[in-house]
Amino acid sequence: MRSKQQPNRGKRQHLRLKVWLEADDGLVTLSDWRASLLEAVQRHGSLVAAARELNVPHRTAWQRLHEMEERLGARLVDTSSGGAAGGASRLTPAAEDLLRRFTALRAGLDEQLAERFRAQFEQDA
Amino acid sequence: MRSKQQPNRGKRQHLRLKVWLEADDGLVTLSDWRASLLEAVQRHGSLVAAARELNVPHRTAWQRLHEMEERLGARLVDTSSGGAAGGASRLTPAAEDLLRRFTALRAGLDEQLAERFRAQFEQDA
Repeated sequence: MRSKQQPNRGKRQHLRLKVWLEADDGLVTLSDWRASLLEAVQRHGSLVAAARELNVPHRTAWQRLHEMEERLGARLVDTSSGGAAGGASRLTPAAEDLLRRFTALRAGLDEQLAERFRAQFEQDA
Repeated sequence: MRSKQQPNRGKRQHLRLKVWLEADDGLVTLSDWRASLLEAVQRHGSLVAAARELNVPHRTAWQRLHEMEERLGARLVDTSSGGAAGGASRLTPAAEDLLRRFTALRAGLDEQLAERFRAQFEQDA
């Protein structure tokens, strides 16, 4: 058993990884967080419920979605008019397609990097 | 030949990827940029020359290094006193070790992700 402090290598470190997509102008079109937002809309069929799950104001969720739609030049969410809850929202086929591609891009990456990190930083050489 | 505009998928997107390490307190200990800084010191034997290569003020380079040393609890650069140029700087064995591990962690990752990105976002399904 080894100390968590990795005495030969200074203090313990943690791995961080971010993957995102940008438009030509450098603005973010899709990221891990934005993909989570789309997934939450897909799961709940509601932007209000998605925002609640991600613990952000409804307005923030709406703004992020709207930004993505502008930057991608594609509609991502269809919202039916509704009552106080803001109506039902569902992903468009374009959003589902985008999410599927991003999920495939990210697949297994955290696990692969975590494995490498363990080999390089947490085991005896 | 396909249009760069990917007409079926809205506007063209670009892949971005960041890998970094943090200490327990969430502060960055090593990142792609910080690894470049260590590599530049290694190559030039001089923090001044490394800062010039990375196009940052000498003071910024020095601060980043000093931060990393504090956060890691290890000395990364040995500097011999010198004249106006600030003397010679060289990586400590701890820094060389850290850089070697980080390089192994990152190895081939950009290429792998770029390949996945092409498959998912730039080719016909």
